[in-house]
Amino acid sequence: MYRTHNCGELRISDIGNNVKLSGWVQKIRNKGFLVWIDLRDRYGITQLIINSEKSSKEVIDSVKNVGREFVIQVEGEVIKREAINKNISTGEIEILVSKINVLNPSIIPPFTIEDETDGGEELRMKYRYLDLRRSVLKDNIIFRNDLTFEVRKYLKAQGFIDIETPYLIKSTPEGARDFIVPSRINSGEFYALPQSPQTFKQLLMVSGFDKYVQIVRCFRDEDLRADRQPEFTQIDCEMSFVDQEDVLNTFEGLIQSLFKSCIDFSLEKFDRISYKDAMEFYGSDKPDTRFDMKFLNLSEKAKGNDFKIFDSSESIYGFNIENGESFSRKEFDYYTDWVKRPQIGALGLIWIKHNQDGSVKSSIDKFYSADELKSITNSNPGDLTFIISGDKKKTLTQLGALRIHVAEKLGLRDKNKFKALWVTDFPMFEWDEDSKRYHAMHHPFTSPVDNRIEKDPGATLANAYDLVINGNEIGGGSIRIHDQKLQEEVFSILGFSKKEAFDQFGFLLNAFNYGAPPHGGIAFGLDRLAAVMKGEESIRDYIAFPKNNSGRDVMIDSPSSIDKDQLDDLNIKIK
Amino acid sequence: MYRTHNCGELRISDIGNNVKLSGWVQKIRNKGFLVWIDLRDRYGITQLIINSEKSSKEVIDSVKNVGREFVIQVEGEVIKREAINKNISTGEIEILVSKINVLNPSIIPPFTIEDETDGGEELRMKYRYLDLRRSVLKDNIIFRNDLTFEVRKYLKAQGFIDIETPYLIKSTPEGARDFIVPSRINSGEFYALPQSPQTFKQLLMVSGFDKYVQIVRCFRDEDLRADRQPEFTQIDCEMSFVDQEDVLNTFEGLIQSLFKSCIDFSLEKFDRISYKDAMEFYGSDKPDTRFDMKFLNLSEKAKGNDFKIFDSSESIYGFNIENGESFSRKEFDYYTDWVKRPQIGALGLIWIKHNQDGSVKSSIDKFYSADELKSITNSNPGDLTFIISGDKKKTLTQLGALRIHVAEKLGLRDKNKFKALWVTDFPMFEWDEDSKRYHAMHHPFTSPVDNRIEKDPGATLANAYDLVINGNEIGGGSIRIHDQKLQEEVFSILGFSKKEAFDQFGFLLNAFNYGAPPHGGIAFGLDRLAAVMKGEESIRDYIAFPKNNSGRDVMIDSPSSIDKDQLDDLNIKIK
Repeated sequence: MYRTHNCGELRISDIGNNVKLSGWVQKIRNKGFLVWIDLRDRYGITQLIINSEKSSKEVIDSVKNVGREFVIQVEGEVIKREAINKNISTGEIEILVSKINVLNPSIIPPFTIEDETDGGEELRMKYRYLDLRRSVLKDNIIFRNDLTFEVRKYLKAQGFIDIETPYLIKSTPEGARDFIVPSRINSGEFYALPQSPQTFKQLLMVSGFDKYVQIVRCFRDEDLRADRQPEFTQIDCEMSFVDQEDVLNTFEGLIQSLFKSCIDFSLEKFDRISYKDAMEFYGSDKPDTRFDMKFLNLSEKAKGNDFKIFDSSESIYGFNIENGESFSRKEFDYYTDWVKRPQIGALGLIWIKHNQDGSVKSSIDKFYSADELKSITNSNPGDLTFIISGDKKKTLTQLGALRIHVAEKLGLRDKNKFKALWVTDFPMFEWDEDSKRYHAMHHPFTSPVDNRIEKDPGATLANAYDLVINGNEIGGGSIRIHDQKLQEEVFSILGFSKKEAFDQFGFLLNAFNYGAPPHGGIAFGLDRLAAVMKGEESIRDYIAFPKNNSGRDVMIDSPSSIDKDQLDDLNIKIK
Repeated sequence: MYRTHNCGELRISDIGNNVKLSGWVQKIRNKGFLVWIDLRDRYGITQLIINSEKSSKEVIDSVKNVGREFVIQVEGEVIKREAINKNISTGEIEILVSKINVLNPSIIPPFTIEDETDGGEELRMKYRYLDLRRSVLKDNIIFRNDLTFEVRKYLKAQGFIDIETPYLIKSTPEGARDFIVPSRINSGEFYALPQSPQTFKQLLMVSGFDKYVQIVRCFRDEDLRADRQPEFTQIDCEMSFVDQEDVLNTFEGLIQSLFKSCIDFSLEKFDRISYKDAMEFYGSDKPDTRFDMKFLNLSEKAKGNDFKIFDSSESIYGFNIENGESFSRKEFDYYTDWVKRPQIGALGLIWIKHNQDGSVKSSIDKFYSADELKSITNSNPGDLTFIISGDKKKTLTQLGALRIHVAEKLGLRDKNKFKALWVTDFPMFEWDEDSKRYHAMHHPFTSPVDNRIEKDPGATLANAYDLVINGNEIGGGSIRIHDQKLQEEVFSILGFSKKEAFDQFGFLLNAFNYGAPPHGGIAFGLDRLAAVMKGEESIRDYIAFPKNNSGRDVMIDSPSSIDKDQLDDLNIKIK
């Protein structure tokens, strides 16, 4: 037996007992006559002590060869510690070592295994198995495990059935890019890895499994943005005999329960906002609503004072910052430069300061009187107003980015505060200028509101919804089409010929002929949910073995070239 | 709202209530003035009644157009049923329908949606979403869900952490065949889909997660045998600071708990047998031990009576069948023919019948006296002995197959009885005559017993174990190598050059340098475990969307050809 206890469980009540522990050497302090070792495992740290008077020569000799990250096994007596360490659970005791056994030595790690490490990201990715020893990462992975279990427990109690859908499916040209998998047995043919189990979960509804859940890997061969992974995990759900209200209530319950059980936070009832209002008031379809700074549409009010920039703008939008009076000229310059950067692309930034004493300062006070400015901004004394004008869509997006940036700077994006929001009523279709056709904003299986497509497809609203928490899109879903005719109509608007639609999705279209129930669902990004709940925005630290921005696993060095024989066997070759 | 109740929950206590139900039309009986509909959903069946006196004209008219598998929504009053149906949970009530709403019609299904269906397998695979409506399949999928949850619950309580490992990994030439995935971003390079997360779970042990579990999809591009799938699900586990005994005890606990909670069966303490003994006594490394019929090695005893077949055989093995006296000459002929079929390949079958009256009948009584035969077989009155002789390995395998077949015929393979067995002490290496090299019997990361390779690699025993239930291999695992030198030695015996070993498994070999703990684990086939627990041997009916024997999903028609554009984009072409 390697251990009687783990390194996190011994307490004052264990004093006098002989125990066996195994773990990693976190730290050694050698005072000559006394040697202390911090022994670490997943559960904690226990202090070992080797005493030149009380320990055997054998132990004293062995300990000389022990270094950081060695795996050792020790036996000894639990004794009371002189200097109590309140930071660790075992801080009241230590082990007087009577036997020491090196289970496996370690060479010097390429970076320090500590909360604040000296290793750069690339190096830590290469030695991910060592980086995972650091408690920051370890705790994230354990948190994710707990979160996952709570999801399963909650949904099982609600009658959801966990059903596995295939990973080797069929490639479809729709949506983001598929990873494909050549079949050896069926030469010249290919499977695809699922971007989501969408069609399968819909078929399960046709089968009568009216509540489905799967925590499932999804794959997208996209050019990777900073915080995307080619494989990611979804909490994938679907329900039958439901409308939007049922779905939102069910999953509002799930998310509230997760926040309560995993981080002891009571989420308020989720706000709801239409996509149109989200854009109009926050310049984003995933607004951070932990703070206010709602947009004011000044397009009417602010025109007509011979200020050319406003007069020639399609739209003028602004937002008030409470207690923004204290912003300095330097800060105005900073934010002006910030919005003018090419990533944001605004032409400039107008500011209006409404002082506590009622006076007004502004970058446009040549054109407007103080009273005019107060009336335009509807601001309170002490408020600062930022305004951007121009093309409507761009203005809203630019101001949305500024809103977030200002809030960040002002410390309004509080990591310990959470605000959840349903965004609804997305457009069904987006017109794509490049391909001169409509794209599905959600996906082609989303039903239109009232199951009715407007004459102008672009004006049709989808029965779709996103869950946004603290400005992060955590999940999205829709009530699906369950009628073959309507589904064909949508495919046709998306530019599929009838033949193409049946070639690719015939199994689903056919299934709709055999009594498909009304159904809808949602999928949550598990990686992101975990990160957001811990107040972080990067998902990478919540994935045990993530890939880098080029889709590479630098630890195992993958993807990699493969033998010609293997390609021959698959009947393919590299061009 | 589509329903106030599901179709399985209304009881006599609900009588008088107005309810709303949604579901599928299972059956319609039309007596003119009375129409009964069996309304089905996942939870059960509720009888609806439309009464020409009590129901509105509207309802009576609507019901005329309703057919099997239509999805309908009804409102009505719960009333007492005249003829109680004790076979269903709602059998005491029915719904007097006041409103009926067809949510989606159905064309006539290609086969009947009933326990005993008229659909052939290929047709049912094509319309899998309809086949899954049948309660046999539906119950299997729900059983699997319950089983999965119990696995997670039990192992979480034991401190196991569920950690997801990547699906896009690196191809290695070792073991069965990899599916590969071309990378678009990294042109000319490929990922592989994991045959198991073996190396990743070992790295997690190096990281210090000392108890890992993942219910994970695995992929093998093999020529498919009858009951294999190109993708299958494993309960994949690994532990640190354990020896074989710890692993066996932990997972014996898991399996016993699953049998208890999922099918209310108390599994006895698992027997243990070495691989050598399993072959010697049962002619199989996965013996069915629900019944006895252990082999007798007659190689010494039975020789020397001038019976040439025995005298010239390397080995002679037999087994006694209790109460086999009643076997007829016809049955002897049947079993003789059975073992002579090419699939078994025996040259013949010897039988000895030890009658209750002490007399003996045998196919070899020309050569042996009654007493000699009794002494050779050590049989009891009433026993029948079957004997096969020849090359040792073949004889054991042939007799093993016969043993199972006889037991099957005698009804000894009781579906409601379960017997679990650990098979241990497998050989480390198997010599392959074709490639003239050793193969790893388990996998190359398995440690030898005592961490020591014998001078003759073929004589080295592995610290490996299989779990066998009712003659099915349910799981297998081993204590792993955690020492770089030993791992290199094993790779070298397996024919890897040092460079090859490091090219392919450098990340693991390197990890062993940084304090790798002793560790070991096991993986269970979830699909098979579910099937075996339900007394079935085919896994296909425990997978929602299985593939056929050619690795095809006939429902979605995959694998399939893909666009040249897509191949171009991946920089590959079909040869």
